[in-house]
Amino acid sequence: MTARLKAAVVGATGYAGMELTRLLLRHPHVDTPLLLRRECDIKGPSSLAEASPVFSGNGGYPLQHFSWPLLKNHGVNVLFLATPHDVSRALVPEAVAQGLRVIDLSGAWRLKQARHRAIYECRDENSAAAAELTPRAVYGLPELNSDRIPQAAIVANPGCYATSIILALAPLLAAGLIDRDHGIISDSKSGVSGAGKEPSARTHFVSVADTLSAYAVFGHRHTGEILEQLHLDAGELTFTPHLLPIPRGILSTIYVRLAAIMQSGEVESCLRVFYAGKPWVRIFPTPQLPQIQFSLHTNYCDLGFCLAEDRRRLVLVSCIDNLLKGAAGQAVQNMNLMFGYKEEEGLQ
Amino acid sequence: MTARLKAAVVGATGYAGMELTRLLLRHPHVDTPLLLRRECDIKGPSSLAEASPVFSGNGGYPLQHFSWPLLKNHGVNVLFLATPHDVSRALVPEAVAQGLRVIDLSGAWRLKQARHRAIYECRDENSAAAAELTPRAVYGLPELNSDRIPQAAIVANPGCYATSIILALAPLLAAGLIDRDHGIISDSKSGVSGAGKEPSARTHFVSVADTLSAYAVFGHRHTGEILEQLHLDAGELTFTPHLLPIPRGILSTIYVRLAAIMQSGEVESCLRVFYAGKPWVRIFPTPQLPQIQFSLHTNYCDLGFCLAEDRRRLVLVSCIDNLLKGAAGQAVQNMNLMFGYKEEEGLQ
Amino acid sequence: MTARLKAAVVGATGYAGMELTRLLLRHPHVDTPLLLRRECDIKGPSSLAEASPVFSGNGGYPLQHFSWPLLKNHGVNVLFLATPHDVSRALVPEAVAQGLRVIDLSGAWRLKQARHRAIYECRDENSAAAAELTPRAVYGLPELNSDRIPQAAIVANPGCYATSIILALAPLLAAGLIDRDHGIISDSKSGVSGAGKEPSARTHFVSVADTLSAYAVFGHRHTGEILEQLHLDAGELTFTPHLLPIPRGILSTIYVRLAAIMQSGEVESCLRVFYAGKPWVRIFPTPQLPQIQFSLHTNYCDLGFCLAEDRRRLVLVSCIDNLLKGAAGQAVQNMNLMFGYKEEEGLQ
Amino acid sequence: MTARLKAAVVGATGYAGMELTRLLLRHPHVDTPLLLRRECDIKGPSSLAEASPVFSGNGGYPLQHFSWPLLKNHGVNVLFLATPHDVSRALVPEAVAQGLRVIDLSGAWRLKQARHRAIYECRDENSAAAAELTPRAVYGLPELNSDRIPQAAIVANPGCYATSIILALAPLLAAGLIDRDHGIISDSKSGVSGAGKEPSARTHFVSVADTLSAYAVFGHRHTGEILEQLHLDAGELTFTPHLLPIPRGILSTIYVRLAAIMQSGEVESCLRVFYAGKPWVRIFPTPQLPQIQFSLHTNYCDLGFCLAEDRRRLVLVSCIDNLLKGAAGQAVQNMNLMFGYKEEEGLQ
Repeated sequence: MTARLKAAVVGATGYAGMELTRLLLRHPHVDTPLLLRRECDIKGPSSLAEASPVFSGNGGYPLQHFSWPLLKNHGVNVLFLATPHDVSRALVPEAVAQGLRVIDLSGAWRLKQARHRAIYECRDENSAAAAELTPRAVYGLPELNSDRIPQAAIVANPGCYATSIILALAPLLAAGLIDRDHGIISDSKSGVSGAGKEPSARTHFVSVADTLSAYAVFGHRHTGEILEQLHLDAGELTFTPHLLPIPRGILSTIYVRLAAIMQSGEVESCLRVFYAGKPWVRIFPTPQLPQIQFSLHTNYCDLGFCLAEDRRRLVLVSCIDNLLKGAAGQAVQNMNLMFGYKEEEGLQ
Repeated sequence: MTARLKAAVVGATGYAGMELTRLLLRHPHVDTPLLLRRECDIKGPSSLAEASPVFSGNGGYPLQHFSWPLLKNHGVNVLFLATPHDVSRALVPEAVAQGLRVIDLSGAWRLKQARHRAIYECRDENSAAAAELTPRAVYGLPELNSDRIPQAAIVANPGCYATSIILALAPLLAAGLIDRDHGIISDSKSGVSGAGKEPSARTHFVSVADTLSAYAVFGHRHTGEILEQLHLDAGELTFTPHLLPIPRGILSTIYVRLAAIMQSGEVESCLRVFYAGKPWVRIFPTPQLPQIQFSLHTNYCDLGFCLAEDRRRLVLVSCIDNLLKGAAGQAVQNMNLMFGYKEEEGLQ
Repeated sequence: MTARLKAAVVGATGYAGMELTRLLLRHPHVDTPLLLRRECDIKGPSSLAEASPVFSGNGGYPLQHFSWPLLKNHGVNVLFLATPHDVSRALVPEAVAQGLRVIDLSGAWRLKQARHRAIYECRDENSAAAAELTPRAVYGLPELNSDRIPQAAIVANPGCYATSIILALAPLLAAGLIDRDHGIISDSKSGVSGAGKEPSARTHFVSVADTLSAYAVFGHRHTGEILEQLHLDAGELTFTPHLLPIPRGILSTIYVRLAAIMQSGEVESCLRVFYAGKPWVRIFPTPQLPQIQFSLHTNYCDLGFCLAEDRRRLVLVSCIDNLLKGAAGQAVQNMNLMFGYKEEEGLQ
Repeated sequence: MTARLKAAVVGATGYAGMELTRLLLRHPHVDTPLLLRRECDIKGPSSLAEASPVFSGNGGYPLQHFSWPLLKNHGVNVLFLATPHDVSRALVPEAVAQGLRVIDLSGAWRLKQARHRAIYECRDENSAAAAELTPRAVYGLPELNSDRIPQAAIVANPGCYATSIILALAPLLAAGLIDRDHGIISDSKSGVSGAGKEPSARTHFVSVADTLSAYAVFGHRHTGEILEQLHLDAGELTFTPHLLPIPRGILSTIYVRLAAIMQSGEVESCLRVFYAGKPWVRIFPTPQLPQIQFSLHTNYCDLGFCLAEDRRRLVLVSCIDNLLKGAAGQAVQNMNLMFGYKEEEGLQ
């Protein structure tokens, strides 16, 4: 058994950061995490309790000012970044140089191909250092990359939409069962916490309640990581996100054409075999379909499907809690893999 | 100008029936409608006020027992049925025989092709009479069938999902601009009033709130009318309904492949030309997209779209209020056409 | 009959302003209103359609730059201010000087007593002019002040909470039936639009959904106008507002002790007599109670009550739509009174 | 340390029952519980997974037919009843006779005084046996009765509203700081799961969403247990429940008059002293107030307050998750006390 982990979190007062801290606080193999904020966040809350009374008690979990010596003095061995991608681009090179292992929840390190990555690049970053590190970052989807995550210096925790879509499609694509030329469509719907904590006209209660809207059609920034992980060309995927009037949860309804006629049982079998031994994916038996509420407050990705009578048109349904399997839960799952714990540890 | 209309409503205490009665009560050319219930509804509310305090005042709008002599004595000339389809199948032949004009909100008379209609046929109906009448019923989508609605004896008011989908697709299909072989997908989301007023495990608040679910995948009963009205084969349409945690409203996200490369302006132009002079369809200029809340409490069908960079993949977004353009509002719009009023009358 | 009204609205893009404009646009005796914005709102939307696609069509209802000559050239006779109270304090003296009649939706002119008014006073206003005008403003609750509203130069449209509470209590207090010494409690709950359109941490969807919170306990700024209108001392009223996870509507649950034992029928009778001939108050017969949804999208204030077995403890329930009877609807009702129209005009 | 517990649950497919089973399944000192259903529930789900896919996996947790020999064979030592009160009245006498310890979540055994208990009594029960047992049942509010719960044969788990109200008032009443003659008011608001899982017109999504309603004013059946536990007379408490458009959570806003002038710090101190060492009550420091969302998915009762300037009028705010501290969580807390575990065990 490995020693108790010393974790630090930057950005603990955002939605994903709070969920992450909550998980780390009750993880059996992690010490009370160091919670950090940077100079520029000086106006933000100075403790978790200030961000949410849920964290009152136990001293209120004060945030400390980020500094490399502080991390060193505390013997931190894993650094979580629940920060905007530009902060991550700025901090990670030094973190890696100091021997810290990094789990980054932003999009900063998810993309290998320059054309996709552009959206996350920043003017003032140390481009040389960042460029050098990019290939060393591992896309932290444990169900796909559990061979490389344990050794990774940087784990790029996947986007929430991307997690729900990639996990649904990976088994059938890996087996060559999907007619890629026909095109794949993901009609995805997300709760509002996916849009972040910053107040805006778009996240005002009155703008969201009692309605539904599509947005960023053909242009959502999670598209690149889906394409890269599934080895698809840009024209092969149509991804339409929608904003649901609920706080959390994602449901993706995914439309594919099978490369050849299949039986429903064969589809189910393909999914089951692919995810055998993977504790955080649940396959629903036909004709049951997952709903958002079944995976809420869990780290599960729930998958189900319906096959048309023609046995060519297939509808996959994939549900996750965007703050857990889509962010903080997956980050802890990655940490478990990186430090030799069971994937389920601290997530039940 | 025609004389003031005498309308009767059967089923006024359901969601669509209440909305319909509300519209008729304030329609400038319609007398206070006769509200009727049948023997078998004797346990239900005996007045609109009993069904909802919104209708308290003005005597509470009592329901009277349905009988043909009563209709005759009141000089009723238009009969609205907001009833289950089997009730409609039973009542309509006699209504037509008595010279009443019927607007039926159920699915009973929407379908011409036997294979689609099967779902709405009933064991105990007078099949011979019903079979004879079926071809005489006109599908009451005014934007498509305004030539035949004015003379129709029976107007079959469209399904709510069907309205949102047909109106989005009709212009492009009519112009031959869609690659039908590729297949059309409608990912549709509806508020809970679309599931009717009957309490069930599925409509319990706790089952619906904070979640989203797909249902009736490849098997929703509105599929037939969409296929018939758009002249599509069964394999050409994939239609997935979802239950939204909101009381009312439908948004359909529709995916098509264009038959040839088009410009965004050409798509918009096709929609605008098709709906020129149609007061209840609004085309949103790119890149604006409709949301459910923009059409709530109105009779509008709002349409918008996004075209991919490849100019072949097109996403259409269509929104309606399921109880108005998807039911009661459209019924009044049909009544206006049948009796020579302006389409907008009583709907603003 | 009076001539057609020329109305102008400052602040048409807020929640109350949009609702007001919608009402004015369909009012049978009002011309298309002039929509105005001031210099400092230059960053805001330049048309109603920009604020909400609901107003697309008809040119999108552009906002014009506010100037006194513009108002004069258009022959404006009624000026609606749906603005912050400091804007109202600044604009009204000149408006009155120019002979305009003003309906102000802010709190600026509601209060006569200096100790209550302090909260709405501003440093940079012309205090002398404002002080002179204060006594001339009439509190625009038509059910109480219909004798003075018709002649008023300035109508101070009531606060939404205040409307729901005053209308419930006025009849019993006027009749001396409440034990004021015992204290009156109003536990009020409001939808989020009451908090205004400005995005904030407090109005973020995730902060409001699935929760309920009390706020401004013993300190809400509507308290003063309730006290003044009901002639209560500060210690006689406890008012606790709560933020509901719904977009609109207010329900106030009000607890009083009767001065003497009463029958339920006597309470009902007191309410009915007080509001006889008042079209926008509905009294619910015991044991029915109003709910928020019954008054939504209407200008009604719905009132109901329960009397304890001891016939001393009385619970009143009062519901309004905060944007209509609590703001824009009441403003139009006031306009109707000021210009000699029926109170119902344009509100049904 | 005590041996591992053998628990059985009747009624595991209701809302409280499912939450209870979930807690027992992960409790470190409890074996997988026996899940039971009675003859009359033969039409209900036959497994937890059938009731909710959340429980799929692990065999789906099938329900077994209730029989006394089955309980004996499994060596059950604690029987949870999440059943209607009449079922509980019927089963408990035999359970006690067989030496089982019972935790009953219904109202059946909560009340000592006949006038309050009437509402829960049943015609066909063995009245003699039930009457004999009534005095032996302990009201299972651990913060008040931790001295008697450990030895109790029957623990009557409190009602959800009652829990939120009693915990807020107990400290001040025990210290004689409240003017009881003046009357105490609890304006309470609950999420819909408190109304149970049975579908009805009242729990239909469309009836609850976007609205708020008061119900059972002066007549809610939790009133009796509040009066008994707080030693109040009927006329001293006014309790008004409201149905909130959220799935779970209760907030009670409680109005009292202090017997003498107090400082805010003295009120806080009274609460803190009373609940010292009680892990599941959190006192919020003034001016912070609890919200429903802070206690959701926890076993906490959160308490806060505001004192008026006159230092006599006090508003208390109390929040719980109705399914946890208001039902299943409290049941487990009681079990912990009965079997010598720490109160926090299995609840974090």
